[in-house]
Amino acid sequence: MELVTVDDIRAAARRISTEIVRTPLLPASWGDADRPLWIKPENLQPIGAFKIRGAFNALGRLDPAVRSRGVVAYSSGNHAQAVAYAAAAYGVAAHIVMPEETPAVKVEATRRHGANVVLCGAGQRERVASDLVESTGGVLVPPFDHPDIIAGQGTIGLEIAEDLADVATVLVPVSGGGLASGIGTAIRALCPQAKVFGVEPELAADTAEGLARGERVDWPVAQRNRTIADGLRSTPSALTFAHLQQVLDGVITVSEDEIRSAVAELADRAHLVAEPSGAVALAGYRKGGTSAGATVIVLSGGNVEPLLLREILGAHVPSAG
Amino acid sequence: MELVTVDDIRAAARRISTEIVRTPLLPASWGDADRPLWIKPENLQPIGAFKIRGAFNALGRLDPAVRSRGVVAYSSGNHAQAVAYAAAAYGVAAHIVMPEETPAVKVEATRRHGANVVLCGAGQRERVASDLVESTGGVLVPPFDHPDIIAGQGTIGLEIAEDLADVATVLVPVSGGGLASGIGTAIRALCPQAKVFGVEPELAADTAEGLARGERVDWPVAQRNRTIADGLRSTPSALTFAHLQQVLDGVITVSEDEIRSAVAELADRAHLVAEPSGAVALAGYRKGGTSAGATVIVLSGGNVEPLLLREILGAHVPSAG
Repeated sequence: MELVTVDDIRAAARRISTEIVRTPLLPASWGDADRPLWIKPENLQPIGAFKIRGAFNALGRLDPAVRSRGVVAYSSGNHAQAVAYAAAAYGVAAHIVMPEETPAVKVEATRRHGANVVLCGAGQRERVASDLVESTGGVLVPPFDHPDIIAGQGTIGLEIAEDLADVATVLVPVSGGGLASGIGTAIRALCPQAKVFGVEPELAADTAEGLARGERVDWPVAQRNRTIADGLRSTPSALTFAHLQQVLDGVITVSEDEIRSAVAELADRAHLVAEPSGAVALAGYRKGGTSAGATVIVLSGGNVEPLLLREILGAHVPSAG
Repeated sequence: MELVTVDDIRAAARRISTEIVRTPLLPASWGDADRPLWIKPENLQPIGAFKIRGAFNALGRLDPAVRSRGVVAYSSGNHAQAVAYAAAAYGVAAHIVMPEETPAVKVEATRRHGANVVLCGAGQRERVASDLVESTGGVLVPPFDHPDIIAGQGTIGLEIAEDLADVATVLVPVSGGGLASGIGTAIRALCPQAKVFGVEPELAADTAEGLARGERVDWPVAQRNRTIADGLRSTPSALTFAHLQQVLDGVITVSEDEIRSAVAELADRAHLVAEPSGAVALAGYRKGGTSAGATVIVLSGGNVEPLLLREILGAHVPSAG
């Protein structure tokens, strides 16, 4: 299987540079003394998540004549908005398939970017998307299972290497694995001294188990769906799993309460609103156990429901002093 | 009176570039269609506020032999932490005078940066600071009434001009006026087409009144202290007022509830935690009335007490959709 290279990631960076926010690496003086903490705040991207990087790279790689027929994606989350946003920037149609139970606020956010949203019943999204590809002639943009998506997400690793060449540890959320595959590939190539860890909810720790076993494992979707981190309920494809085997030094798993605490800590100390999926890397950092030296956590997104944000903050109030 | 120039600001930018975060200008797709909204997120600076720019410029301008004697500042807010942080970076002592009623969390935060905190009674801070200058030989670093502070804060304007040369409107919080003086000076020089507005709480609108009258007015401190925006309770000096007269196109005043709404909107839509003082520019934008075209709001800081953040968010929940 052919893996994405750092040159693919460099080409992606050139392709998407005018469309994304070049996020700064933020020093957090409240980290541990022996593991200085840095935050890569991808919640500051236009749609509030890193997914925009892969989407712009995938659309940018299409032949203009093909791209003009539009694009199709299925997602209830950040990938939906990312593809809708990138398609609007390219002036092409986006057809986004979302489950019927998607919260109205996410459907509206996707429509606001001009997308045609098609709601479908449980388990039908791949078939509906495939029908749309056939009827519109549009290209399917998968959420993680594609080299262009992996390369796009990997541009985050390139930026980390530019800003902090002597990084010791990078902590990245893992779900379908596109983000960790891309970042890990860039860091392996450019900062060979650094260790790269995935971070997963204990309730959706299929990748931790799979890497330990040396083969993908299939956790039932109902089981993975128990975690509050709704962006981390996917499972790697053969392509992303092959990358993760190459580039990860391990996977740290975190509890639901550790995830919630990390959301509150990011709001109170870093002045950043993270969605639960976006806060798992800080939760992994707080578990300790990684080497001394500069540590980067990737805050992957900030699209948390307002009521959930309030519930989490209300239950986690820091003590004074 | 000699005013700060854009060349002073350019020199400041070179002086502080390795010490501060070069904050990105964030596009906010949820702004008005005819006034595309951009956010300058200074809450992402190491101490959570723009004050670090002026502090590093003021310390950087000192002769090393003078600087080695240490620095003195009086502040209960972000300036205290900024001077403590910059002094620690330079390896010199910082003596920070704070009122006895300063919340313990702010005293602790300042001490964590290695500062010697001296608590004092109401109305005594200038005398206590002056005694410290005499006893230690350290240099007083004022919060806004100094050309080096104004030039340091002005680097934000330089960055806005670099990132968005065709900006139509810039909205900046006004208190002592150092931030608005510096940003206004840079924008006037580099983006002559742009309008620059200060934004003030109605409860501390001394600058709006003073500029309308053409002379500084003195609102009693007890009156100004009514606003929730605790960073906006100061009043311009002769030096900053002279700048504001030159560089501001006007001052927009906002109510307490408009400020609270803006804090919630920034958390829910921009994924950024702002202190009330840091959110007034968005409140000013929401009042409308500024020209069409790209509009930048300066989010000046994020140091809100955790309990106050929760109170504000709890009272301002966006409706779905």
